[in-house]
Amino acid sequence: MKAGVIGATGYAGIELVRILLGHPEVEKIFTGSVNFEGKNLTDVYPALIGRYRNKTDGLLLTPEEVAERSDIVFTALPHGIAEKYADYCVKNGKKLIDLSADFRFGTDEETFKKWYKEDWKFPEVHKESVYGLPEMNREEIKNARIIGNPGCYVTSATLALLPALKAGIIDTSAVIVDSKSGVTGSGRTPTDTNNFSSCGESLSAYKIGSHRHKPEIERNCSFAANKEVNIIFTPHLVPMSRGIVSTVYANFTVPASERIALQAKTAGIGAADVVRNMYRDFFAKEPFVRILPPGTDPQSKNVRFTNFCDIQVYTVNDSKMLEIISTLDNMVKGASGQAVQNMNLMFGFEETSGIDFIPYSF
Amino acid sequence: MKAGVIGATGYAGIELVRILLGHPEVEKIFTGSVNFEGKNLTDVYPALIGRYRNKTDGLLLTPEEVAERSDIVFTALPHGIAEKYADYCVKNGKKLIDLSADFRFGTDEETFKKWYKEDWKFPEVHKESVYGLPEMNREEIKNARIIGNPGCYVTSATLALLPALKAGIIDTSAVIVDSKSGVTGSGRTPTDTNNFSSCGESLSAYKIGSHRHKPEIERNCSFAANKEVNIIFTPHLVPMSRGIVSTVYANFTVPASERIALQAKTAGIGAADVVRNMYRDFFAKEPFVRILPPGTDPQSKNVRFTNFCDIQVYTVNDSKMLEIISTLDNMVKGASGQAVQNMNLMFGFEETSGIDFIPYSF
Amino acid sequence: MKAGVIGATGYAGIELVRILLGHPEVEKIFTGSVNFEGKNLTDVYPALIGRYRNKTDGLLLTPEEVAERSDIVFTALPHGIAEKYADYCVKNGKKLIDLSADFRFGTDEETFKKWYKEDWKFPEVHKESVYGLPEMNREEIKNARIIGNPGCYVTSATLALLPALKAGIIDTSAVIVDSKSGVTGSGRTPTDTNNFSSCGESLSAYKIGSHRHKPEIERNCSFAANKEVNIIFTPHLVPMSRGIVSTVYANFTVPASERIALQAKTAGIGAADVVRNMYRDFFAKEPFVRILPPGTDPQSKNVRFTNFCDIQVYTVNDSKMLEIISTLDNMVKGASGQAVQNMNLMFGFEETSGIDFIPYSF
Amino acid sequence: MKAGVIGATGYAGIELVRILLGHPEVEKIFTGSVNFEGKNLTDVYPALIGRYRNKTDGLLLTPEEVAERSDIVFTALPHGIAEKYADYCVKNGKKLIDLSADFRFGTDEETFKKWYKEDWKFPEVHKESVYGLPEMNREEIKNARIIGNPGCYVTSATLALLPALKAGIIDTSAVIVDSKSGVTGSGRTPTDTNNFSSCGESLSAYKIGSHRHKPEIERNCSFAANKEVNIIFTPHLVPMSRGIVSTVYANFTVPASERIALQAKTAGIGAADVVRNMYRDFFAKEPFVRILPPGTDPQSKNVRFTNFCDIQVYTVNDSKMLEIISTLDNMVKGASGQAVQNMNLMFGFEETSGIDFIPYSF
Repeated sequence: MKAGVIGATGYAGIELVRILLGHPEVEKIFTGSVNFEGKNLTDVYPALIGRYRNKTDGLLLTPEEVAERSDIVFTALPHGIAEKYADYCVKNGKKLIDLSADFRFGTDEETFKKWYKEDWKFPEVHKESVYGLPEMNREEIKNARIIGNPGCYVTSATLALLPALKAGIIDTSAVIVDSKSGVTGSGRTPTDTNNFSSCGESLSAYKIGSHRHKPEIERNCSFAANKEVNIIFTPHLVPMSRGIVSTVYANFTVPASERIALQAKTAGIGAADVVRNMYRDFFAKEPFVRILPPGTDPQSKNVRFTNFCDIQVYTVNDSKMLEIISTLDNMVKGASGQAVQNMNLMFGFEETSGIDFIPYSF
Repeated sequence: MKAGVIGATGYAGIELVRILLGHPEVEKIFTGSVNFEGKNLTDVYPALIGRYRNKTDGLLLTPEEVAERSDIVFTALPHGIAEKYADYCVKNGKKLIDLSADFRFGTDEETFKKWYKEDWKFPEVHKESVYGLPEMNREEIKNARIIGNPGCYVTSATLALLPALKAGIIDTSAVIVDSKSGVTGSGRTPTDTNNFSSCGESLSAYKIGSHRHKPEIERNCSFAANKEVNIIFTPHLVPMSRGIVSTVYANFTVPASERIALQAKTAGIGAADVVRNMYRDFFAKEPFVRILPPGTDPQSKNVRFTNFCDIQVYTVNDSKMLEIISTLDNMVKGASGQAVQNMNLMFGFEETSGIDFIPYSF
Repeated sequence: MKAGVIGATGYAGIELVRILLGHPEVEKIFTGSVNFEGKNLTDVYPALIGRYRNKTDGLLLTPEEVAERSDIVFTALPHGIAEKYADYCVKNGKKLIDLSADFRFGTDEETFKKWYKEDWKFPEVHKESVYGLPEMNREEIKNARIIGNPGCYVTSATLALLPALKAGIIDTSAVIVDSKSGVTGSGRTPTDTNNFSSCGESLSAYKIGSHRHKPEIERNCSFAANKEVNIIFTPHLVPMSRGIVSTVYANFTVPASERIALQAKTAGIGAADVVRNMYRDFFAKEPFVRILPPGTDPQSKNVRFTNFCDIQVYTVNDSKMLEIISTLDNMVKGASGQAVQNMNLMFGFEETSGIDFIPYSF
Repeated sequence: MKAGVIGATGYAGIELVRILLGHPEVEKIFTGSVNFEGKNLTDVYPALIGRYRNKTDGLLLTPEEVAERSDIVFTALPHGIAEKYADYCVKNGKKLIDLSADFRFGTDEETFKKWYKEDWKFPEVHKESVYGLPEMNREEIKNARIIGNPGCYVTSATLALLPALKAGIIDTSAVIVDSKSGVTGSGRTPTDTNNFSSCGESLSAYKIGSHRHKPEIERNCSFAANKEVNIIFTPHLVPMSRGIVSTVYANFTVPASERIALQAKTAGIGAADVVRNMYRDFFAKEPFVRILPPGTDPQSKNVRFTNFCDIQVYTVNDSKMLEIISTLDNMVKGASGQAVQNMNLMFGFEETSGIDFIPYSF
């Protein structure tokens, strides 16, 4: 298969290239860039020197050339640009996975417009799009032609909440998502924020109440709960390169609390164990979600450079509240790894193909 | 004045020495150590080479020698050791500030015992002790002979909540304190946790529901609210050396929510502005609490190496919930700086004397 | 093939396990530990949860059990312990690769004793041992039963110097190796040195003139030059987890300097280009040495988590001096990756099998 | 005294402001900025909120306004801009300390032009300028009206070499300066290089043979040695915010080597001790140079946030070579602290006034 990456020099783009280089089903990779057209990837990322022998020459083509030559196109661009490539792909029997927010809201142009301040230029093509969170809608992904790949924070929050929301055990009027992210979340463009001396040795909160991932988390959660879910979302910037940890707090509904207490008592286990078992069952067949054993707290380094999302559950406030902590690598399960997982589903490959990374311990 | 530091080679101890070396009222510093007795501080911390000319020769004495020679004794030791020095000080007309948990619970031996698994050997001396959080009980500190210096997380959480609790505007049945701390919080002893390659490039949660600072936060909050406050406390370890950020969530009571909405409407400002003004008034005379202006999010680097606690307030979930973020340096306002602030109060010095550090911007 | 790792919970050990888990020729992995016997690897390294399904159950056996069950045994232990397992392997038709210094000095017990303060208990088995630096003695490795895997600093320095020494172009009376290493070089045991708050935000020099890798570098260099080479070796500790950069300085011999100047003039290129071409030719068939193109300076992140050693050459001091900079990942090409490279050679596998990692760009 | 800082929002500028805020002789500080004129310093650096009550209102004036109102002007600007302010100061009886390279080369326009690619527009004013390294030319600084503040690498290299060069004990035909610097060295402007995810967890070399500090080091060294000194200078970028470590290698001259050996033998000490004593004598009256005791290796963290330069000396290669390691904080002794040291000298203040910082141990 021939894969194309438009925006190959951004962080998500180069991570995609790295993953596709190791993917057994991908024969050829075409890379495109607006800023570096005509240059070679190794001019920007010398780490890859010598790695292109087989699959790619690393030459940065125009987006159009990439789209033309590829069976599957990944767009890793700023918001508002992917539509025309999506339109082209649909019209030419190709598939496209977009890593920006452009296709994350299905046909809900209003929400997109409200948060991203952009109009849609190709409204028709959005009807084709499917939201690419396999744990939520794997079957639709398999048949999709256009995928909106989820946001990084969104993936961590949604996976943490899916089982509880589906089971209807938590109060949806106020769910707190306190997230902590590594610096790559802000992308490759150098800024005052991602400067080493600015963000190193410091932790900061930002965009409280105004981060664009909030409506996406709420949409996913409301879909899972089948009713409106209010998310209080606080992102924090952490002095590390990769990784997201989301600490999620929600009150049990009173009936759920009682039912869980009873189940715990009957089984001679703790309330947290009851919920953990429920989570384990829910994700039993998921290749990339690990429910941690009791006593093991999540650490972002354990999922770094992998497509795993690690989840632990706790009951707090005298078992009236559920606390869930999830962690993933924002560049892998939170971006490029998940994009390849979607590609695998769309093309009928083994779902873990090319993304079955063995975790690093340090 | 002659000051003694027992446990001078631990992180809190050496930070105390550093601060006292620059304190205008301290003439002489005696340093003590159990592990390094007879050695010199510069053997352990060569950074201080050449700094002892005037105030100290850096020789590490026995704890007893330190207590004997000093007017004020700081104990920076593991829990359960300070009592005998406190007893000695009280009996010999000296004052003591303990940086461990031993004197943080007043006469409530039961709570101490439950969380710290230690009995009191000198129960009488605890009657003398005063909790050393100046923003909460400055007047008692002034007259105290024994001070229990607060925990680092505790200081950040209490300062974040004090105004809201005193004003009775939040629901006390469930207050969430999601805290993030730098690695010095775990002390100087090398462990699997504070190893560079273990905690670097990673964020982790730990001791959910079981951290010993929880009962201390709850005690402070209940005292401020004049009723029981339930704290849900989640500490996280951040790959930076110093700094704590506590992100606190609490529901407004319905009447408070309505009152704040009305005040906001009347004044033509936001609900968060109403609460921020309340916080500003509450801390107006505090030299070390900075209520940040609207639009400025807290960053731990802004208070690093200072005795400041920076606080920002937000209203979230359609103004039904109050979110407060506080940040401080766990080794300064969270430990040794606060201890010196207490000393200043006890001895009638200018409260900011020796701890009026100018913040670093990077 | 069945592979055993004794000392699987140390950094080199767990890195070996990680690599072997992805190695196509290894069917079964047995892990051993002295400290954690009977526990599971995931108790120590939860990153690996769920990864053992096929190749290993992660149970930590005794060293003896590991040796007994394996075709190839890796010993990743403190110095002075591997001998008895080597003896056992030789007597039982198995092969062993030792990652400590025990087998790095061939039959030269004196040098080992001088620097490592240990006697040999099984002197006979050392006669079997081969030094495991493929770029230096690939053919001997292929037929070896016992391999002494090189030191991390040693690998970076030797690869930087091999072509120049073989070509006899540098003065061997004083070759400076100024090396900078990440913190994992000091191993997993927590110490005052590798504590995050001790080594973070700091660079330090250590063991000037007394580091144990110095005699090993000198031995390799003298072997290559076929005469005595004096190395001035200064190691530095860098606040990063992995990576070594060695900056090497040596004077050209006068005839070499003249010859290179002439060649440069004739070819219309720079003196550095002449030497770079010589290096490129020397390593032309090496799968893991990358001679960087002119203008590209070495960065340790470009080889992180890979088995590559990147090398750049410069001429300085008016072309009278050669400067070479090499960089590698101390845990991969500097330890476990190189060990697997040796295994591949010993068993006739593809040399890059299981260690052909695609580099990360960030 | 009234002090002005033009370029107050850059790293050197804000560090100057921080130091001057704590300086006992400075009553008033005026801050200027080209980019942020009309804004307040706290808009850019909220760390300083509340710190301006006494000495400054933090308002960012035009450069001209700053120059007009100040007795001493600090220019912390890109190269090529300070001349006109220097000209203005000289003509109006004010003094100026420039932290760029503009006044580092005395009247040697040619060297400046060669390395900085700029012409001088006010050649006359350069005749007034004095090079501001107190350890080298304190008396001239006292009477200067214009100071060229030294480069950060230059200060570390010059201090490491001064005693040896003055004593004529080393061969000056090839002196190696292998330097390692924290990221603030590259300034506040965000770039691909100082991005956290680019430079974090990595060490790299850069500008080998072409760094602009090389001619400045050579000029200083040649001045001290009273003959030409050839410097081989390799800068490296280290993942830490502040700090420079320079590892310097030079051959002893044969007579010096013999003399030192004899002195060592006579005194029953090592050759390194002989040289260390010589260094100690040389710097005996210097308030900011610390010659470390034998056995203590330099660590950049020990001088972080201070105006100290720590130096250790070693003899290597069978005592034929001298190795010197120096470390300083590039923003303090390497920039703004040294600038204030110069101000103290120029105005007859205590030399350590306002810069006598107590070192942090972590």
